[in-house]
Amino acid sequence: MSILTLDILAALEKQSIELPSWAFGNSGTRFKVFGTPGTPRDPYEKIADAAQVHAHTALAPTVALHIPWDLVDSFDDLRRHAEDHGVTLGTVNSNTFQDDDYKFGALTHEDAAIRRKAIDHHLACIDVMDATGSRDLKIWLAEGSNYPGQADLRGRQDRLHDSLQQIYARLGDDQRLVLEYKFFEPAFYHTDVPDWGTSYAQVSALGDKALVCLDTGHHAPGTNIEFIVMQLLRLGKLGSFDFNSRFYADDDLIVGAADPFQLFRILFEVIRGGGLNNPDVAFMLDQCHNVEDKIPGQIRSVLNVQEMTARALLVDREALSAAQRSGDVLTANAVFMDAFSTDVRPALAEWRESRGLPADPMAAYAASGYQQRIAEERVGGVQAGWGA
Amino acid sequence: MSILTLDILAALEKQSIELPSWAFGNSGTRFKVFGTPGTPRDPYEKIADAAQVHAHTALAPTVALHIPWDLVDSFDDLRRHAEDHGVTLGTVNSNTFQDDDYKFGALTHEDAAIRRKAIDHHLACIDVMDATGSRDLKIWLAEGSNYPGQADLRGRQDRLHDSLQQIYARLGDDQRLVLEYKFFEPAFYHTDVPDWGTSYAQVSALGDKALVCLDTGHHAPGTNIEFIVMQLLRLGKLGSFDFNSRFYADDDLIVGAADPFQLFRILFEVIRGGGLNNPDVAFMLDQCHNVEDKIPGQIRSVLNVQEMTARALLVDREALSAAQRSGDVLTANAVFMDAFSTDVRPALAEWRESRGLPADPMAAYAASGYQQRIAEERVGGVQAGWGA
Amino acid sequence: MSILTLDILAALEKQSIELPSWAFGNSGTRFKVFGTPGTPRDPYEKIADAAQVHAHTALAPTVALHIPWDLVDSFDDLRRHAEDHGVTLGTVNSNTFQDDDYKFGALTHEDAAIRRKAIDHHLACIDVMDATGSRDLKIWLAEGSNYPGQADLRGRQDRLHDSLQQIYARLGDDQRLVLEYKFFEPAFYHTDVPDWGTSYAQVSALGDKALVCLDTGHHAPGTNIEFIVMQLLRLGKLGSFDFNSRFYADDDLIVGAADPFQLFRILFEVIRGGGLNNPDVAFMLDQCHNVEDKIPGQIRSVLNVQEMTARALLVDREALSAAQRSGDVLTANAVFMDAFSTDVRPALAEWRESRGLPADPMAAYAASGYQQRIAEERVGGVQAGWGA
Amino acid sequence: MSILTLDILAALEKQSIELPSWAFGNSGTRFKVFGTPGTPRDPYEKIADAAQVHAHTALAPTVALHIPWDLVDSFDDLRRHAEDHGVTLGTVNSNTFQDDDYKFGALTHEDAAIRRKAIDHHLACIDVMDATGSRDLKIWLAEGSNYPGQADLRGRQDRLHDSLQQIYARLGDDQRLVLEYKFFEPAFYHTDVPDWGTSYAQVSALGDKALVCLDTGHHAPGTNIEFIVMQLLRLGKLGSFDFNSRFYADDDLIVGAADPFQLFRILFEVIRGGGLNNPDVAFMLDQCHNVEDKIPGQIRSVLNVQEMTARALLVDREALSAAQRSGDVLTANAVFMDAFSTDVRPALAEWRESRGLPADPMAAYAASGYQQRIAEERVGGVQAGWGA
Repeated sequence: MSILTLDILAALEKQSIELPSWAFGNSGTRFKVFGTPGTPRDPYEKIADAAQVHAHTALAPTVALHIPWDLVDSFDDLRRHAEDHGVTLGTVNSNTFQDDDYKFGALTHEDAAIRRKAIDHHLACIDVMDATGSRDLKIWLAEGSNYPGQADLRGRQDRLHDSLQQIYARLGDDQRLVLEYKFFEPAFYHTDVPDWGTSYAQVSALGDKALVCLDTGHHAPGTNIEFIVMQLLRLGKLGSFDFNSRFYADDDLIVGAADPFQLFRILFEVIRGGGLNNPDVAFMLDQCHNVEDKIPGQIRSVLNVQEMTARALLVDREALSAAQRSGDVLTANAVFMDAFSTDVRPALAEWRESRGLPADPMAAYAASGYQQRIAEERVGGVQAGWGA
Repeated sequence: MSILTLDILAALEKQSIELPSWAFGNSGTRFKVFGTPGTPRDPYEKIADAAQVHAHTALAPTVALHIPWDLVDSFDDLRRHAEDHGVTLGTVNSNTFQDDDYKFGALTHEDAAIRRKAIDHHLACIDVMDATGSRDLKIWLAEGSNYPGQADLRGRQDRLHDSLQQIYARLGDDQRLVLEYKFFEPAFYHTDVPDWGTSYAQVSALGDKALVCLDTGHHAPGTNIEFIVMQLLRLGKLGSFDFNSRFYADDDLIVGAADPFQLFRILFEVIRGGGLNNPDVAFMLDQCHNVEDKIPGQIRSVLNVQEMTARALLVDREALSAAQRSGDVLTANAVFMDAFSTDVRPALAEWRESRGLPADPMAAYAASGYQQRIAEERVGGVQAGWGA
Repeated sequence: MSILTLDILAALEKQSIELPSWAFGNSGTRFKVFGTPGTPRDPYEKIADAAQVHAHTALAPTVALHIPWDLVDSFDDLRRHAEDHGVTLGTVNSNTFQDDDYKFGALTHEDAAIRRKAIDHHLACIDVMDATGSRDLKIWLAEGSNYPGQADLRGRQDRLHDSLQQIYARLGDDQRLVLEYKFFEPAFYHTDVPDWGTSYAQVSALGDKALVCLDTGHHAPGTNIEFIVMQLLRLGKLGSFDFNSRFYADDDLIVGAADPFQLFRILFEVIRGGGLNNPDVAFMLDQCHNVEDKIPGQIRSVLNVQEMTARALLVDREALSAAQRSGDVLTANAVFMDAFSTDVRPALAEWRESRGLPADPMAAYAASGYQQRIAEERVGGVQAGWGA
Repeated sequence: MSILTLDILAALEKQSIELPSWAFGNSGTRFKVFGTPGTPRDPYEKIADAAQVHAHTALAPTVALHIPWDLVDSFDDLRRHAEDHGVTLGTVNSNTFQDDDYKFGALTHEDAAIRRKAIDHHLACIDVMDATGSRDLKIWLAEGSNYPGQADLRGRQDRLHDSLQQIYARLGDDQRLVLEYKFFEPAFYHTDVPDWGTSYAQVSALGDKALVCLDTGHHAPGTNIEFIVMQLLRLGKLGSFDFNSRFYADDDLIVGAADPFQLFRILFEVIRGGGLNNPDVAFMLDQCHNVEDKIPGQIRSVLNVQEMTARALLVDREALSAAQRSGDVLTANAVFMDAFSTDVRPALAEWRESRGLPADPMAAYAASGYQQRIAEERVGGVQAGWGA
């Protein structure tokens, strides 16, 4: 009999993790972007690749778009294309960091005309959402400054509020805005939304449809991320996750690769706080596959989340509570670690097979020939990256 | 003519920085507490020492108390003692980290009886405030856990809210509660109020008389502290500062010693946000003089704050705004750095003399013979430290 | 059949991890040291407790001493006491951080008389080693400064070399000196041996019997510790490990508790570099059980090391090399993670039983009644801590 | 009379800081590279711009080249071009991070053919040095891995040694190799030369002509950089500095912009250790002017170094030593801070004028019309960046 109970399997069956279209394009560092054979040349090919992840795992039914990188002539057409491939279009991500006008800010810019342009870009993103049926507008602000004195921190914060209000006002009844925070980069002295507190204060000032997006790679060294997960769930303001992992900065590595135990702790707090399979809390990946293959990189990622979710569901919460109440530190820790130390992979493989999925999605994908096919077919054109 | 205008001098004249009584006792690390000749044996001697700082600088008219370290038979008597020495009693600090009952928490403890005890301690602190005429109750929570699984993060947060509410309810009309946050220590896995966001969320749930206390040494590596200062002033929730400086963790070094430019930036945001000489924003020191003399250590500290305040007041804010608005990064930074690079010490010395204060308070204290006197007189008894 | 091959079991059987006598005494933070019933009152009781760890695990046959905390009238007697309890005495740790003379340094002090005193202390430690049959003298230097300008960094380094040379000259042919490095604490501005490079440069200047001690909690945030392990093994200068774990600073938590994957990576590099069961590379614990029970805390620790060693031994190194050589990032990582994800606990339990050891040492210790017995018997006297 | 004595002025007069040719081209983050009017299109224009910095400051007589970015048909011609503009060509920087072959390493690669290619690139760089008369070959290795298991840490270290030996063997009698270390980026799990210890161990294994290059932005958070400066000078292995500043990662901001006090402390240790105006210790900038103008950004940078050098030369070292010897922490710190707090700008301005230089080089450059001229003239062509 499986170590995964029916309740656990039922929870796992409902799990879905949104994939970022840009993870299938090329990415890199400021020093170099390496290309790989088979990289998509347009949004249609990105979605076809994303669909491979879902086909092998049943974990990734939606694909997030990034505007303007994923602009197409007809989003109706793109939507049908996605559906033909077994997936749907998800969160729409805005971009205010690649236009020359935004060198010194966008939603926070000193110049009202540039703020207007940035706000209009977001309104256009909501238009896309209307066309794609997306619920969430995700705003990551690359804004900040590099030198002390360069920027008026307070004025920017006030202008940010004003800009966000105008965007918020345009949201449909069933649409939401999620505001991502980030410790640093691309700005190196100050960032306008650097921490969860700032994002929380800003979205709280907007209304119920504005929430915080927590990217697991966007914190200061040593930050206890599961604490923030707990707090945002407690405050009713955790809108979504951008999953990835890091050793140093915003490394954007495969989720669970750098510190699997941290991912376990985060998922335990998600479960504990009612955030698992809760439609209000979107699970997304936001990663860069700079040196590894992209499609299997994404498959590995969703499997890591699934595996750690299974382990976190294994925590004997009654025994844990009893140990916590009695101040028995070692027993409480042991109950917690017992779940983390359990190898759920065989049970997951068996369960996958029972559902008509490959026991080993990585091997199945490798055997499928898809990678070779796209490497051969996708000749010519410009490989997609962070700019197209 | 002085480089410090009359407006600047007027602002500096109003500045006051509260001293912590415990800075005059012995302190150290977990490895060793070194004693020094002349260390006070009781609250009366601590206040006498604190009064020396004020006498030489006119910057430190109030002294914060720590309960139970500063418990006396009659706070009326202590108050008169302070006034006789030219200072008054200030913020009352509670202590829920040295009783064996608090090993696993105090305001957050699983056991209602221990929470009750911790709440009652705070009510007793408010009784002290009534007797001393203090306005602020400062709560620093040493609570947290050392191992994943040890504690129920969410339950503790809810219990914290409940406990704080009961304390808040007891505050007089003119009294306030300030809640300090701290990144880590003494707990090493999670801390119940680890960041400004948590403190802000907790005090916002209480009411207008609850505010955040920002200790400059309580942040993750790399945190932009002046940004938090700006944000809390913007949100109307910055109640007080605990000034000190750090290279690594909560080092509690002399304010301005580790990164004088950071102190300058913080004070600039205080001024910019209306927090200077604003009674709603208390300036306090919270430091440990582990290896240096305590009274001159405190004199050095208040002078550092004064000096950086003077430099921050020198910023040409019109020129700064103009450069910021035009995106002229180098000029904006230059305007900012021009103030920081200015040596205000001669002008401050001259101004001190004009007010009947010593031009060089450090030298004047050294020449006063006070240190030798207390070293000779304070023989016998137990030197005050973190426990008495 | 076990997932652990005979080769792996043979390697595990040879593993030994030295316990620190001080882990059985009380410890805490600068804020508070909590006592617990049953805490040893003298070195004899500490060794009796340490012997319990070995009795239940067969992993901890030696106990490190700390001088002067473990000074006894007769080390011959203590040695026999240890042997009677089935363990032997191991590394001798010096202490130059608790004498008032060492406020500003010991081996690095400006004053030759104080340096002499500190050197003599180390010579006395070698006398103890002669009596106990210990091989290693471990030097952790708490020396440094708190304020820029306080100390002459260069002069101290030169004096350190001179002092170490005098100590080194006294070592017997079969004795060694291991020099520990630490990022910070108790000094907060500079530490005289802050990083592996400094320790390496200092011990290289002494000779073959001087090596580096790597404490896993003594690094800057984000440091890749397994890289240092690899490098020191490569350079032939890794003398010993002080195992523990940390989230923030030198938290001294149970090894493997904060980041089990990091412990796995470290042990993989130990194995890869020939450091496992290599007498030249001593495995030791250096931990503080501030809030958890001490004896089971130590049992948990050695089991964590054993478990991660087993997982690290499971890495399919041929498959790993093949993937590395071909630049197949995802496969190399998968081979590595496959070992880490394997639950070796059932196989280890079975193997323990086959050797006459308890399958579950934690449960066996709890059931042994030892903890209750010492709690009842050890009444009166002064509980051991960092000072006795 | 100037606060800068004749000795100090004599020292300042000898100071020279090498400029990196690439600082005059465009740079940015992985998110965006902003262009600016007037950016050079080729090495000739970069050198013309660098010469402007020297013309206004007399501080920057040499320009470092980066190969292949600065490849030209005739280095003799480029050398004459430089001399015509009043500067000379300096350190040659190799590049093994932008060729597709180097995705998984260069000097450390598993494949001998790729290592050969990387070694040959360095030999070609030495050919350039022969042509330009450059003394130093600077090697910054971007090599490392992103995922645990991806790479054989130890094998790479051994191969690195082998590759470096082959390069070292080709150096002329008066040529040197300096090996830069870097904490992370572009690799996110391990970097092959991550710390000064590794660079020191590698160059020590080569010989006297191999030294360490210390980039001030390449350390873990909290690292005491001046300590490393002291240690490398003590060990005779500090070959050169790459100056810049940072708040978070390798931000490459203007030197002195993030933490001027740190720059002061570093320069004090340089002076203390005999590294100032010592031909064995090269001063270079390595910065990115992502959002600010490049030529004035470089002028600001060399002025910052000069100003902090002047302040560091003002330290009263006798008084400092006396206070250090007597354990007078506050006085030692006060002597140190007194120099740091001194405003040397008026004295430097006066001294510049006395030498026929502009009192305010920033203003003089702005008034020169050069920026407008290049903005108008440099139309067409491709602006230089990290790739041309």
